[in-house]
Amino acid sequence: MRLSARNQLAGMIQSIKEGVVTAEVVVKLNGGEEIVSVITVESVHGLGLKVGDKVRAIIKSTEVLIATEE
Amino acid sequence: MRLSARNQLAGMIQSIKEGVVTAEVVVKLNGGEEIVSVITVESVHGLGLKVGDKVRAIIKSTEVLIATEE
Amino acid sequence: MRLSARNQLAGMIQSIKEGVVTAEVVVKLNGGEEIVSVITVESVHGLGLKVGDKVRAIIKSTEVLIATEE
Amino acid sequence: MRLSARNQLAGMIQSIKEGVVTAEVVVKLNGGEEIVSVITVESVHGLGLKVGDKVRAIIKSTEVLIATEE
Amino acid sequence: MRLSARNQLAGMIQSIKEGVVTAEVVVKLNGGEEIVSVITVESVHGLGLKVGDKVRAIIKSTEVLIATEE
Amino acid sequence: MRLSARNQLAGMIQSIKEGVVTAEVVVKLNGGEEIVSVITVESVHGLGLKVGDKVRAIIKSTEVLIATEE
Repeated sequence: MRLSARNQLAGMIQSIKEGVVTAEVVVKLNGGEEIVSVITVESVHGLGLKVGDKVRAIIKSTEVLIATEE
Repeated sequence: MRLSARNQLAGMIQSIKEGVVTAEVVVKLNGGEEIVSVITVESVHGLGLKVGDKVRAIIKSTEVLIATEE
Repeated sequence: MRLSARNQLAGMIQSIKEGVVTAEVVVKLNGGEEIVSVITVESVHGLGLKVGDKVRAIIKSTEVLIATEE
Repeated sequence: MRLSARNQLAGMIQSIKEGVVTAEVVVKLNGGEEIVSVITVESVHGLGLKVGDKVRAIIKSTEVLIATEE
Repeated sequence: MRLSARNQLAGMIQSIKEGVVTAEVVVKLNGGEEIVSVITVESVHGLGLKVGDKVRAIIKSTEVLIATEE
Repeated sequence: MRLSARNQLAGMIQSIKEGVVTAEVVVKLNGGEEIVSVITVESVHGLGLKVGDKVRAIIKSTEVLIATEE
């Protein structure tokens, strides 16, 4: 499968916190940064996600804001 | 200003392509990856964005999907 | 690749309209409905999308609103 | 009320799972597919949603990714 | 039709700028603030939107970030 | 920090409801309207948000739908 999403950042799952409906998945990128994702608990179970798994964080370009420092 | 968005990735603007309403801004992250953002042309002008500017790419955690490799 | 996105609807590309930055892709679902997607022109070219291609429309569950009829 | 959202898929609520803040609503589309939506518990109660209700799943076109099969 | 979206802000269209695929619609809220929306040109035409129209800006709560001033 | 997001609405936090992963923050805008935001509990704690705080609700223009009344 190939995706239209322009942002596909490779990394490893560092932590998973599960609520009732949603779960928070923290991914340590190969470049060193951390990305936090909120997906459904069903998706965590459906994909069998666990700490240490190699994954990609996928982000549609229309979802990215730009901030300037000044 | 501090933001609730969990993902704030530092980098430098590599290119800007302007359409009529929207513009595509490519940011080279300090970690080496590229992030593509689609914002309005008005925002590009309002912030005075140009190639070489230091910026942050801001992404709300609910916008991040997870993909597994297999 | 497997995705956390819960909504993955199979169909065929019915039309593509390209602007400068964004493109509108209309997908006819196998179930008969139409789905409209706005992605970047770069993604259309990068994936080599054309009318008649079999694709899936992918939607994160946090992006789906519910409307009642009354 | 008429909406700018291009994707409005008719169906029936198949299940509702409530957390503290968010709820997961599964809609069986008339075309046979399932759509998963995550909205607030407050919205579920405010609209009085229950299994069997006829609803529409509403999706803004900028939220739809395209995936190719190869 | 009633919507799960928690944020429905009433106002009047102040301007419309059309590109090829997307259009920018500026809504002056009854409370005095301005809201900018990017939707498809097809939606602008399909709804017959024009300056002066009374509309509502609809925003899903998962799309709202919080910023603190300090 | 300045942001590309076109919609930045000033107000005061009226209530916070925390789940396990996500929290619902209600902001009373200076213009009188209410805005509901769903962010992570971690963000609520990281920013030290509490009822009465002056904040801004930030919304990317691509996330705003338009509804007509008829």
